[in-house]
Amino acid sequence: MRVLITGAAGMIGRKLIARLTADGSLAGKKLTELVLHDIVAPEAQGTPAIRVQAHTGDLAEAGAADALAASRPDVIFHLAGIVSGEAEANFDLGYRVNVDGTRALFEAVRQSGITPRVVFTSSIAVFGAPFPEVIPDEFHLTPMTSYGAQKMIGEALLADYTRKGFFDGIGIRLPTICVRPGKPNKAASGFFSGIIREPLNGQRAVLPVPRSVVHTHASPSAAVGFLVHAAGLDGDRVGPRRNLSMPGVAVSVGEQIAALREVAGERFVGLIDEVPDPTVWAIVQNWPTRFAATRARDLGFTAESRFEDIIRTYVKEELGGRIPS
Amino acid sequence: MRVLITGAAGMIGRKLIARLTADGSLAGKKLTELVLHDIVAPEAQGTPAIRVQAHTGDLAEAGAADALAASRPDVIFHLAGIVSGEAEANFDLGYRVNVDGTRALFEAVRQSGITPRVVFTSSIAVFGAPFPEVIPDEFHLTPMTSYGAQKMIGEALLADYTRKGFFDGIGIRLPTICVRPGKPNKAASGFFSGIIREPLNGQRAVLPVPRSVVHTHASPSAAVGFLVHAAGLDGDRVGPRRNLSMPGVAVSVGEQIAALREVAGERFVGLIDEVPDPTVWAIVQNWPTRFAATRARDLGFTAESRFEDIIRTYVKEELGGRIPS
Repeated sequence: MRVLITGAAGMIGRKLIARLTADGSLAGKKLTELVLHDIVAPEAQGTPAIRVQAHTGDLAEAGAADALAASRPDVIFHLAGIVSGEAEANFDLGYRVNVDGTRALFEAVRQSGITPRVVFTSSIAVFGAPFPEVIPDEFHLTPMTSYGAQKMIGEALLADYTRKGFFDGIGIRLPTICVRPGKPNKAASGFFSGIIREPLNGQRAVLPVPRSVVHTHASPSAAVGFLVHAAGLDGDRVGPRRNLSMPGVAVSVGEQIAALREVAGERFVGLIDEVPDPTVWAIVQNWPTRFAATRARDLGFTAESRFEDIIRTYVKEELGGRIPS
Repeated sequence: MRVLITGAAGMIGRKLIARLTADGSLAGKKLTELVLHDIVAPEAQGTPAIRVQAHTGDLAEAGAADALAASRPDVIFHLAGIVSGEAEANFDLGYRVNVDGTRALFEAVRQSGITPRVVFTSSIAVFGAPFPEVIPDEFHLTPMTSYGAQKMIGEALLADYTRKGFFDGIGIRLPTICVRPGKPNKAASGFFSGIIREPLNGQRAVLPVPRSVVHTHASPSAAVGFLVHAAGLDGDRVGPRRNLSMPGVAVSVGEQIAALREVAGERFVGLIDEVPDPTVWAIVQNWPTRFAATRARDLGFTAESRFEDIIRTYVKEELGGRIPS
């Protein structure tokens, strides 16, 4: 089993590589080769059983995707992309990477004649307000960001290439990934992770929106679980609707904070400063809250059921399993 | 008021040109120039008041769209496209014309700095089975043809370019246009027009599906009415959801035939031969039937309310107003 991962140097890419290397297999088959691609050099150790091939460059550039398809992967995880904030700030770059890069990869696969399983990370950003209380699987796509529009285009391409038999695609719409490891960033969604991560690292965190805001979260390891599960899914069971909203934990910010209190203690909660920010609030108001994700659950995708578990995953994976004293 | 029409040599394009020339105005403003584009030479007479400029070529070719944007149109009707059957048979051509051509036009408008109203003809082919009994405006997009996928991508681009303020777009999802003038063709949907048109022209027609099949229709002149209405819509009233399912007449094939009997007489009905075709039936089963089209109706889009009126429109526009004896 040869596996290609684009966006392999990103947070999810690195966690996926770690998971696949630890498992030594995917979809019931022995993993023999990892082909990695990113705009910056991706890193992976490899093992005696797993050969690693690393490519660095721009997927939209002529020939780049062909070089990846030439490795004849059995499974492709197409994670590469410009993130939401950057795609909004740089219109041309967003379309080049998220649309042209995706189309170049799909087209290279088609031209090569291989028909791999292609797992594509889409996003709940394909949806736009106003929303019903729970967003059904059949809700229409009306993105309110360029990132969302680009993911919608990727979904259309994925479904059409699959229908034509050029490859066997599954698109997974990721909820917000929480708790993101690493440093605070300026993303509008950054506080969802920040109000957990910063206190657990002994730092103060800013909460810019009301505690009543509801949002759906999945941990990085749940996201990796979605990817691995998607790789092994029976395409016939999925049917023609190839883009699936993933499950997650829908909680209010207040419930996130209560979970932090339960898992870590009151003194961590005391590190959160509520500083309302009308700009962030204006953005967050247009974000989806709860998803039915009925099809994904029926197809066996699982996420955490409680936000406490999401915090415990962070403590286990990023803090060596110990709440700092 | 300068108006650009792509796909100007097509059936709808020619009827739109005739309507605009007759009206002499659009959206309350005097029409002074028609800029026409198509892959074959578009034709229009012009009038002393309306100058006509005609361009012939491939919209996706470098520079072609820039030349059109350079005419600084106030309204663009982007009708150009490869039709459903051809887009399915020729994957590369469909993507080149329907996706690359559309993106080239939108990008040329953005780069030129003009911010016209752009009216884009999408299609109910963006929807895919299974369907609820009435398809709501919020139903998701799961096209089951390359044409539908390409229109979905056009819708995503239109909404995003509009949101970013690069132009002011309205996408209209046309139902099946009936009665299509001209010769019978091999399109799977051809019989919807054929069972009316051929008898009225004294020829036998084949009905390949059961009379119980329900489908939504609008006449060519109703489609032109949608385009003209979309050109004058207040964008603020439309809001961010820029792609609208158009109204139409939802009837069964049996009701179409009954309408033919009412408008023209029993002997025309006798020219229809019911010859079941499992291939056509398999395709038609996946087509949408009824649409709520609530938003479009609220925004003032109107179509015929009875199929009899659709037949009468054909008789008036194509047969000089007389049922042949």
